[in-house]
Amino acid sequence: MSEEPLVNPEVANMVGDWKGYVEAKLGFRNHWYPVRFSKELDEGELQVIELLGERLLLKRIEGKVYAMRDRCLHRGVPLSRKPDCYTKDTITCWYHGYTYRFQTGELVNILAVPESRLCGRRKIVTYPCDEAKGLIFVFLGDEDQVHPLHRDVPPGFLDENVRILGKHRIVESNWRLGAENGFDTLHIFIHKDSTLRHFREFNFPLGHTALDGAVTTVEEEDGPKGVEDDFSKHNPVWEGVIDGSVVVKGPRSDKVQGTSASVGTSIWLPGVLKVNSFPVPGLTQFEWYVPLDEKRHLYVQTLGQTCETEEEWIDFQNKFETHWKPHGLDGFNGDDIWAREVTEPFYADDYGWVDEMLCEPDSTILEWRRLASRHGRGIQTKQDLR
Amino acid sequence: MSEEPLVNPEVANMVGDWKGYVEAKLGFRNHWYPVRFSKELDEGELQVIELLGERLLLKRIEGKVYAMRDRCLHRGVPLSRKPDCYTKDTITCWYHGYTYRFQTGELVNILAVPESRLCGRRKIVTYPCDEAKGLIFVFLGDEDQVHPLHRDVPPGFLDENVRILGKHRIVESNWRLGAENGFDTLHIFIHKDSTLRHFREFNFPLGHTALDGAVTTVEEEDGPKGVEDDFSKHNPVWEGVIDGSVVVKGPRSDKVQGTSASVGTSIWLPGVLKVNSFPVPGLTQFEWYVPLDEKRHLYVQTLGQTCETEEEWIDFQNKFETHWKPHGLDGFNGDDIWAREVTEPFYADDYGWVDEMLCEPDSTILEWRRLASRHGRGIQTKQDLR
Amino acid sequence: MSEEPLVNPEVANMVGDWKGYVEAKLGFRNHWYPVRFSKELDEGELQVIELLGERLLLKRIEGKVYAMRDRCLHRGVPLSRKPDCYTKDTITCWYHGYTYRFQTGELVNILAVPESRLCGRRKIVTYPCDEAKGLIFVFLGDEDQVHPLHRDVPPGFLDENVRILGKHRIVESNWRLGAENGFDTLHIFIHKDSTLRHFREFNFPLGHTALDGAVTTVEEEDGPKGVEDDFSKHNPVWEGVIDGSVVVKGPRSDKVQGTSASVGTSIWLPGVLKVNSFPVPGLTQFEWYVPLDEKRHLYVQTLGQTCETEEEWIDFQNKFETHWKPHGLDGFNGDDIWAREVTEPFYADDYGWVDEMLCEPDSTILEWRRLASRHGRGIQTKQDLR
Ligand code: FES
Ligand code: FES
Ligand code: FES
Ligand SMILES: [Fe+2]
Ligand SMILES: [Fe+2]
Ligand SMILES: [Fe+2]
Ligand SMILES: [Mg+2]
Ligand SMILES: [Mg+2]
Ligand SMILES: [Mg+2]
Ligand SMILES: [Mg+2]
Ligand SMILES: [Mg+2]
Repeated sequence: MSEEPLVNPEVANMVGDWKGYVEAKLGFRNHWYPVRFSKELDEGELQVIELLGERLLLKRIEGKVYAMRDRCLHRGVPLSRKPDCYTKDTITCWYHGYTYRFQTGELVNILAVPESRLCGRRKIVTYPCDEAKGLIFVFLGDEDQVHPLHRDVPPGFLDENVRILGKHRIVESNWRLGAENGFDTLHIFIHKDSTLRHFREFNFPLGHTALDGAVTTVEEEDGPKGVEDDFSKHNPVWEGVIDGSVVVKGPRSDKVQGTSASVGTSIWLPGVLKVNSFPVPGLTQFEWYVPLDEKRHLYVQTLGQTCETEEEWIDFQNKFETHWKPHGLDGFNGDDIWAREVTEPFYADDYGWVDEMLCEPDSTILEWRRLASRHGRGIQTKQDLR
Repeated sequence: MSEEPLVNPEVANMVGDWKGYVEAKLGFRNHWYPVRFSKELDEGELQVIELLGERLLLKRIEGKVYAMRDRCLHRGVPLSRKPDCYTKDTITCWYHGYTYRFQTGELVNILAVPESRLCGRRKIVTYPCDEAKGLIFVFLGDEDQVHPLHRDVPPGFLDENVRILGKHRIVESNWRLGAENGFDTLHIFIHKDSTLRHFREFNFPLGHTALDGAVTTVEEEDGPKGVEDDFSKHNPVWEGVIDGSVVVKGPRSDKVQGTSASVGTSIWLPGVLKVNSFPVPGLTQFEWYVPLDEKRHLYVQTLGQTCETEEEWIDFQNKFETHWKPHGLDGFNGDDIWAREVTEPFYADDYGWVDEMLCEPDSTILEWRRLASRHGRGIQTKQDLR
Repeated sequence: MSEEPLVNPEVANMVGDWKGYVEAKLGFRNHWYPVRFSKELDEGELQVIELLGERLLLKRIEGKVYAMRDRCLHRGVPLSRKPDCYTKDTITCWYHGYTYRFQTGELVNILAVPESRLCGRRKIVTYPCDEAKGLIFVFLGDEDQVHPLHRDVPPGFLDENVRILGKHRIVESNWRLGAENGFDTLHIFIHKDSTLRHFREFNFPLGHTALDGAVTTVEEEDGPKGVEDDFSKHNPVWEGVIDGSVVVKGPRSDKVQGTSASVGTSIWLPGVLKVNSFPVPGLTQFEWYVPLDEKRHLYVQTLGQTCETEEEWIDFQNKFETHWKPHGLDGFNGDDIWAREVTEPFYADDYGWVDEMLCEPDSTILEWRRLASRHGRGIQTKQDLR
């Protein structure tokens, strides 16, 4: 025996310059991931989360958030199963009393074996946490690899007056099917029944293909790594023809300009999409596909708006609840969630990566796979879960 | 890694001249299989079926039935999940608009990429369909291997005035446990509580063993390949003896002749049984064990009767509903279904084929396994499912 | 292929002198295991049980209990699925009439093939049974390996005036997590909310560590093999300290002496614990962790008391029902069951045996693992299940 590999190496060896992406079934290690909204974790509250296949405890202590593996060093049980928290800073395992400090992961004591050689000399894994724009981020990786947060979020997300609102939910597909669904310019076809399309004036082609110069990669050393796609340099198709007859049309509005529902998208490591001017001009959608395990991701959907005044902020919150959450994040993106889940079985045994039959506009997806393979800081493996 | 084999090769290599049968866990490729009754598929109707591990779309267009793999070439999603049929002859994938013609499988267009190099140059897999005696048959195999239907049904089934009635249901066992249950002369023991036995005059031994000359194989080039078993050349046993005492008897009727409930059976590739003079003289039971996947088969149960006049046909339909369906196909064969499902676990990991302990009358089953290994036109593999 | 091994050999090869214990995921073969209470199996009654991954039929015939594999030699079906018992001593397979004698496993007849070469020449597997102290024991192993029962039960269990009462239930963990939970001196921490602690006067430390001389192994040739742990030679800890403050205390009573809730424990092959003076002085708890399969064990909980008179026996039964069953076997041990089930996932893929981080008092557990590896009479393998 020895463990079965996470990814079929036969497949990984067939894909050339995006092998790392195929191997990153559990996500890329050593990156920052949003896991909850800040307001979801109160002072002193303990929560259990999943991230890249690991189960973590999240706790807020004196305002700061800490993340620790939810698995006792002694005999591997989840501490969360019956949390014995005798002090604010520590958690004691309910089984034999191993006691850990949240801030460091240090085994501070074994209650009935205070003299144990282990005390003060062993640590449970902890991960750096940060908060920005109302989101809690966890750096899932090795201590000597920590990078600044701004390298792992899309440009503009951290800008001074940008306010962020959003929601999250679990999607039953691998995270990469989320990322590719979001960045793929042809899949707009599935949104043809969305209420959002009727709610505002849109141009909604059946799909569009990037022309020369539309796609650029961003790979500066101190910034985020991503692929940008400018829809003003795209060729849209408005009519679908079968056997010589037009059978379906993509509606165009004479009130608006533009190739598509947004002016462009970009996809960034470790798996976050930015949609410019969406759902309406002035708004930007940022959405993360956070790996939970091989088959599920946390879909963290956010909208950002620059608010110079408190009034603008109140107005944004109001519009978010009445318009963009129901018609955008729920309605429009509901189609995306459904599509990802239906695609999952074909890729579940990895063969989908070589059996798929991509067409010309999918070259943007290949660009993303190659970029992710070049700049992903590490591949989460089964070994990392032990 | 590389994929796990469908069948344990250690087992397949132990069975000698019926290795192909052990390997055909998903059935024999390049044969005709009944999948639905003709009346179950209306003009223009779309249905999803399974066959030898593949998921297929079935559609009737201008009277003719077509079968196509239900999996988009692009990214592997089931077309059936949200069928977009803009023309009678085509289906468009709901995700990115790949459009296929049912008759040929041809990728006729990608709605938003009409100039794609793929259009007109790629095909989704299709399979020939035929209809006979009120059943829809699909040839699950390669185009250059298509054989005439009459080579894959039992003799007599296609005869001019034979009328066929029947039903089908899913059984939770491998298809071979269906075939062997049907052909096995000893298993009559399980039918001892059937209402059919009380409904008409039967001779019902505990079991019977073929004598010399009872069993013959049929292997003519242009005909079906099968094993025939003539019960008039069998030795029946009427009393079960334990420790010197008769403990159970097989009832005999002085009103009828014969060794068993039928005068003989035969089993044919790709897995179809013919029971002569059953449930009563004048009727013939034809039943298929159609592989759905490794663990399930479609049990297609039919009765045939020669009807020279419309009156005979009306009478047959009436008797079928009032007598043979409830007492035969449901009651009597209900025991067979139950027995197959209980046998499944022993053979599920393939070891059953070498761990079983067959007795003398089971030689007829071995004859079938060898014949199937000689004449099966191909073995369905995991590779065929990709 | 060829079958996947039961235990990851990479792990088994890492643990040195307790390799056999890691390999015994399905338990040790060639030992006696209690499977039911005698009063649960009436004369003539047939029951189905599981033991070390095998499914067995248990039948009482003229007072004596017999155990036979519940799997027909012919085509592997469970005889129990529809038991046809035409005589007191035999069972006939419902499918084709293979008939077996319970006492010997002999294939005495095939009802419809009385002349078969197999009759009288094949046997289904049977196992020796015995009864003692109101329990039915089965020797799960090879006929030429049968040992006397007294080598497989703790000292004192078979003593003349000892009366035994108890119950059993299925626990969803490997049997070894049961054994180690029972013998582990540190896990008393989980019992801190038990009603038993409030019901009687106890000394209840947070845990205790064996000092020199506390632990001894018992390995005499004609006796049971076990590890004994004497709590009078232990160092108890009464206060749990975190960051300099006492955060939890183990209650002490000035009315009783002693280190812990019992005066000592011992663990014996093939997986049975003896707890001296528990739940109160004068009683002894004997409890078995009987492997059902890789992931479940039968927890057979018994209490023993020396009863010289009928009055003492009646009093014991009364106290058992009103005190020790609800507060001990149900309440107190309910925590143990819960803990074992929560520990299961960490050890399920075997890596737990090398990834665990034991502390000083766990040396008693290592002693047990080594003893079991030295004296286990055989390891149940997947091959034994075929
Ligand atoms: S398992 Fe956590 S202290 Fe033992
Ligand atoms: S998956 Fe069918 S068109 Fe893309
Ligand atoms: S399976 Fe038991 S007699 Fe055939
Ligand atoms: Fe979308
Ligand atoms: Fe039958
Ligand atoms: Fe306990
Ligand atoms: Mg900060
Ligand atoms: Mg580890
Ligand atoms: Mg025809
Ligand atoms: Mg393929
Ligand atoms: Mg065997």
